[in-house]
Amino acid sequence: MQILSRSSLPLQPGMVAFVGAGPGDPDLLTRQALKALDQADVILHDRLIAPEILAEAGPQARLIETGKQGFGPAMRQEDINAAIVVHAASGARVVRLKSGDPTVFGRLDEEIEACDAARIPWRILPGLTAASAATAAIGQSLTRRGRNSSVRLLTGHDMEGFADHDWAALARPGEVAAIYMGKKSARFVQGRLIMHGADRATPVTLVENASRPDQRILSTTLDRLPADLAAAELTGPALTLYGLAPRAAAQALPDLAPAQKELA
Amino acid sequence: MQILSRSSLPLQPGMVAFVGAGPGDPDLLTRQALKALDQADVILHDRLIAPEILAEAGPQARLIETGKQGFGPAMRQEDINAAIVVHAASGARVVRLKSGDPTVFGRLDEEIEACDAARIPWRILPGLTAASAATAAIGQSLTRRGRNSSVRLLTGHDMEGFADHDWAALARPGEVAAIYMGKKSARFVQGRLIMHGADRATPVTLVENASRPDQRILSTTLDRLPADLAAAELTGPALTLYGLAPRAAAQALPDLAPAQKELA
Repeated sequence: MQILSRSSLPLQPGMVAFVGAGPGDPDLLTRQALKALDQADVILHDRLIAPEILAEAGPQARLIETGKQGFGPAMRQEDINAAIVVHAASGARVVRLKSGDPTVFGRLDEEIEACDAARIPWRILPGLTAASAATAAIGQSLTRRGRNSSVRLLTGHDMEGFADHDWAALARPGEVAAIYMGKKSARFVQGRLIMHGADRATPVTLVENASRPDQRILSTTLDRLPADLAAAELTGPALTLYGLAPRAAAQALPDLAPAQKELA
Repeated sequence: MQILSRSSLPLQPGMVAFVGAGPGDPDLLTRQALKALDQADVILHDRLIAPEILAEAGPQARLIETGKQGFGPAMRQEDINAAIVVHAASGARVVRLKSGDPTVFGRLDEEIEACDAARIPWRILPGLTAASAATAAIGQSLTRRGRNSSVRLLTGHDMEGFADHDWAALARPGEVAAIYMGKKSARFVQGRLIMHGADRATPVTLVENASRPDQRILSTTLDRLPADLAAAELTGPALTLYGLAPRAAAQALPDLAPAQKELA
């Protein structure tokens, strides 16, 4: 049943929508995002956006790729900003498509400020962030009564700037954190958490390519994280869930012999 | 364009899907959630789910309301668990529909454990959590380079159990937190944060009924939070964004005379 709502027309000519593409499965796009992709004249998208999501664009849409995987943006940020503004100023309906939720580690602000400086109207269409999809994939909750009443979303890139009380808070029993881009910092994070008293047996789960057909799940512990991560050779984007084990694996933990466990 | 994906058939007979309904706008449902609502034989839903979302159910669906607003569940949790299991065991396609993302303050685990105990297959279909919609509504990001590299999702109910290092970490300049169900605890939270050195001028924004036609935005500061909150008389569910001001209001902050500012 199609219900008209105030967001039924998310885009107007000359306007920019910053659209969250979700974690990868095109069925995890919101209906609002699907409408924006259908209406867009120009779609500027990151390198990591799945082809199945780009296939949701209308036939009129011009697709522009802005970034390269693993080597920073192929287009400089100023050029991305300029492209967004130029296309909108020419009257196009512009979608700036970002993985996950653009408000979470989406580097959104600079592009919004470029629109504001050029008096280009814009809006944000939120998307499903990787933490939600990864947690759903392992059958867990990010928060649970009696275990943790808060959850942190972090980026591995910046955890070297953490203060001692951040580590102390995270090291407490029952704490849960979703660490984005955390593969490279895994050894550093492990060391700091153990130094601040975290239990070495704390479960850690990495979900690679969450929600995509090539999704893989690595279930390990804080103690074994660097070794298991090296052995698993995850090449796709991965979300690290600190403090959570896959529900089935959690039940079977005492019997787990292999360091790496792949589900689904 | 309709792309087949592995989640194209989210429900099978005798199975339970724990579905995130998102923050309220039916256009913020994922396509996966819309498919599940379309297929479901039985939908058990919280009281707060908008009628426009329930209207997405197929004509065969039996709708069962499980909770009352503000007075805890009308059905006891054991009865909800039993209803989920009984309907699935009878071969129905069951949707358990929860506001926002079921993995974030969704009280999901007890219901999953009831399914596991009865050997009922289940899956989680993640939804957009209120923090994403509220942040998008004020044109901000939950994280921003140079300001904050992590964000906390908290529930106001449980912040009285916070340790000193939690408060110390949250009180630092640039920190951002999304506080769910934070209206009643606003004065307590304000007191602790100020005690731990937070700047009284830290922006605080409450988004009531995020993404719904009756959405209201209250832009205030840590210092004025309890007084402005009392004056605003927010009656709907509200998300508190600590450390964020609406983008336009933030620019205009020096000129802001009225304590309460409502946008859109």
